[in-house]
Amino acid sequence: MQHSLSEIQEVVLSQVRPKPADRTRIEKTSTAIITRVEKLASEHGLHLQAMLVGSAARGTWLSGDHDLDIFLAVPPEEDLAAALDIARIAAQDYEEKYAEHAYIHARMDGFEVDLVPCYLVDDAAHLKSAVDRTPFHTRYLSRKITGKEDDVLLLKQFMKGVNVYGSELKVGGFSGYLTELLVLCYGSFVEVLQAASSWRPGKRLDLEGHGAGKHSDPLIVIDPVDPKRNVAAALTLDKMLQFAVAARSFLAGPKLDFFFPQPLPPLSDEELIAELDCRATMPILLEFSAPDVVEDVLYPQLRKAESSIKALLERNGFCLLRSDVSTYRDRAVMLFEMQVWQLSKASRREGPPAWEAEHTARFLAAHPSPLSGPYICDGKMVVEEARQYTSARELLSCQIENLSLGKHLCASIREGHNIYVGQELLGIKDDGFRSFLAHYFCAKLHIG
Amino acid sequence: MQHSLSEIQEVVLSQVRPKPADRTRIEKTSTAIITRVEKLASEHGLHLQAMLVGSAARGTWLSGDHDLDIFLAVPPEEDLAAALDIARIAAQDYEEKYAEHAYIHARMDGFEVDLVPCYLVDDAAHLKSAVDRTPFHTRYLSRKITGKEDDVLLLKQFMKGVNVYGSELKVGGFSGYLTELLVLCYGSFVEVLQAASSWRPGKRLDLEGHGAGKHSDPLIVIDPVDPKRNVAAALTLDKMLQFAVAARSFLAGPKLDFFFPQPLPPLSDEELIAELDCRATMPILLEFSAPDVVEDVLYPQLRKAESSIKALLERNGFCLLRSDVSTYRDRAVMLFEMQVWQLSKASRREGPPAWEAEHTARFLAAHPSPLSGPYICDGKMVVEEARQYTSARELLSCQIENLSLGKHLCASIREGHNIYVGQELLGIKDDGFRSFLAHYFCAKLHIG
Repeated sequence: MQHSLSEIQEVVLSQVRPKPADRTRIEKTSTAIITRVEKLASEHGLHLQAMLVGSAARGTWLSGDHDLDIFLAVPPEEDLAAALDIARIAAQDYEEKYAEHAYIHARMDGFEVDLVPCYLVDDAAHLKSAVDRTPFHTRYLSRKITGKEDDVLLLKQFMKGVNVYGSELKVGGFSGYLTELLVLCYGSFVEVLQAASSWRPGKRLDLEGHGAGKHSDPLIVIDPVDPKRNVAAALTLDKMLQFAVAARSFLAGPKLDFFFPQPLPPLSDEELIAELDCRATMPILLEFSAPDVVEDVLYPQLRKAESSIKALLERNGFCLLRSDVSTYRDRAVMLFEMQVWQLSKASRREGPPAWEAEHTARFLAAHPSPLSGPYICDGKMVVEEARQYTSARELLSCQIENLSLGKHLCASIREGHNIYVGQELLGIKDDGFRSFLAHYFCAKLHIG
Repeated sequence: MQHSLSEIQEVVLSQVRPKPADRTRIEKTSTAIITRVEKLASEHGLHLQAMLVGSAARGTWLSGDHDLDIFLAVPPEEDLAAALDIARIAAQDYEEKYAEHAYIHARMDGFEVDLVPCYLVDDAAHLKSAVDRTPFHTRYLSRKITGKEDDVLLLKQFMKGVNVYGSELKVGGFSGYLTELLVLCYGSFVEVLQAASSWRPGKRLDLEGHGAGKHSDPLIVIDPVDPKRNVAAALTLDKMLQFAVAARSFLAGPKLDFFFPQPLPPLSDEELIAELDCRATMPILLEFSAPDVVEDVLYPQLRKAESSIKALLERNGFCLLRSDVSTYRDRAVMLFEMQVWQLSKASRREGPPAWEAEHTARFLAAHPSPLSGPYICDGKMVVEEARQYTSARELLSCQIENLSLGKHLCASIREGHNIYVGQELLGIKDDGFRSFLAHYFCAKLHIG
């Protein structure tokens, strides 16, 4: 069914706009927490100012999202540990987490609440810690975003739908703050899409016209409260362009589906067999216990290991179609889909130009008994020798422990790992894994 | 057994230096032919001057070589056809051959005699045909080479032994005239080897210091009788360097074997199976009837076809180790030895940068239903689609008739061809073919 752009926006807003009752509940809950925290602080003789920050503070959270970010600001001469103590007492049943500093995560009144200690600084140029910037963001936006909350909600849901929302390293997409700045910059949801349609790498936006310093990121959005910072630093080139392509496609043919795509069900055995059959590639899966670290630590290590293994395979003459990494339950996996996984025993080793007498002599001494050669081809010395590894699986299984992988991964893989090849993948029945495979094999942009 | 350089030279010369009896026989035979031809010409009222040219004229032919080149020179205003008629009558039992012009090949008194009509010109700058230059070469060398015949013989035999002798296109090596110029230029056999040891591509020699015009050949030896001509134009880079490497190796460790290498016997079935086993490559052989043309026409076409087929295979994702061409009896073969001969069905097609809206739209329209994608990778649109050919044999057998090959080859291949893969090569029992395979698999430079 064909809908107009404004019909679609209305349908989306009816689903993602927070209900009045939710707003009331958020206000009540956050006020209660703030009051309690400040009271506790004053009882402990600590000067502390608590404040609700983030989308909940500005009415720009997506309905169904129940995260509250409450910052506990202390003067720069105080210790953050004192604020953390207050948070512990206030939260009672909590989990202690760690980003740049420790913070407290708790469930309170049905909300997921983060209590984050920070310093109360008078100027964003004098930050003592990265989180100190957040109150400045809240202050900057709350004055300007009023009246544009719907546009922010539409943009966030669109980005969720086309899979570019979230600045965590696993995703590499757009942060909530960045979406709000884009709406401020261009004026409305549709105007953001129109502008993004013609974005190129290196696009630069500077709302306050105060940007300082060089950035080589694909998208540069100067932080209105900090001229040296690029708000879009975590956004990858591919996610930026994925958004641009989706924006073009949506404007050319608006569909509700961009906001709420059909979920991909996990791959069944039959579907997996059918995929392997029609692709006739050779998937090689490395599976091991996921190290117990947060995703922002784990994913960069997984991506780096993925690159190292790709390089190992290609250096040895094998050829990849594509690769990806994922986690499910307590497991981590890296998938390498091969176009070429079996090679001849004989391989070609190119040496120096034959007129370089010394290099040639060293090359010949290093290859005393080749299968064929030495001969000269296009002016270069060449020998043909036996390859050490003729199968990609064998190479990976023999060399995996010799690669220099990230600290946590390295330990995990040494403790134990499995290699699954081809139809052996059928042995892993986990829905999370099969869902990863479903997305891997589809790998389709949202272009309507 | 270790021999000194001079001992080795003596042994070689004792085998390749023409015997006094041979010299007498050559002189007698050639004088008889010349007399007969000039008499016949005069009877037919043709002004004709016959002369012995080439190595036989200068005592620089290798013992056992029984070729006599006798040129029949007529004044520029005469017709070469008249000289050819005289040659026909003189030869009686002959074969008519064709290089730039027609000539007569006959067996006379146990010699292979070429009777070659040419023009008698007064200056090598006023040639009417390429063969007219030869008498100038004979005249130039006969005055200078005297006393250095042994060095020429050593150099020729060395070049034969290390497989770089012969300027025909099948070989692309050194001509007899070129070897004599090298001896003149450097002084002796050993001095030629010493100089060649440090040759680099672009090496230029100009005995008369009169060279004119640019040459981009690997070795440039200006013809003493023609300042615009490079005597080494037919020498390939690889044959030049093969000689340089052999020269270095020989000087570092002189061995008789450089001059008289062990002949490689044709490969037996068992040896062929063993080679295929330990290389574990996939040889693909294209076999067809050799077109009935001289080797100087056939080999360039074979090499060009070899390149076209290599390009076809590589363009489609397959990977070669090496290839070669050959002829035996009335057959021609091209051998392609594959490192990768089987590929996945799914392949990757890279499109334009995702920010180029129009190119992207065209790319997407051209690939409406890929196996996976479209997705964005490193900024580019990518789709994964089914390959047309997943096996190298299938590709070759379906596409061979669509390649634009040389005129003669194209006709031959269309008339009929066979493709042999892997152990199917065992089906060809011909000794000439098995000898080609023996050399192909060994492919070893003469480096002692």
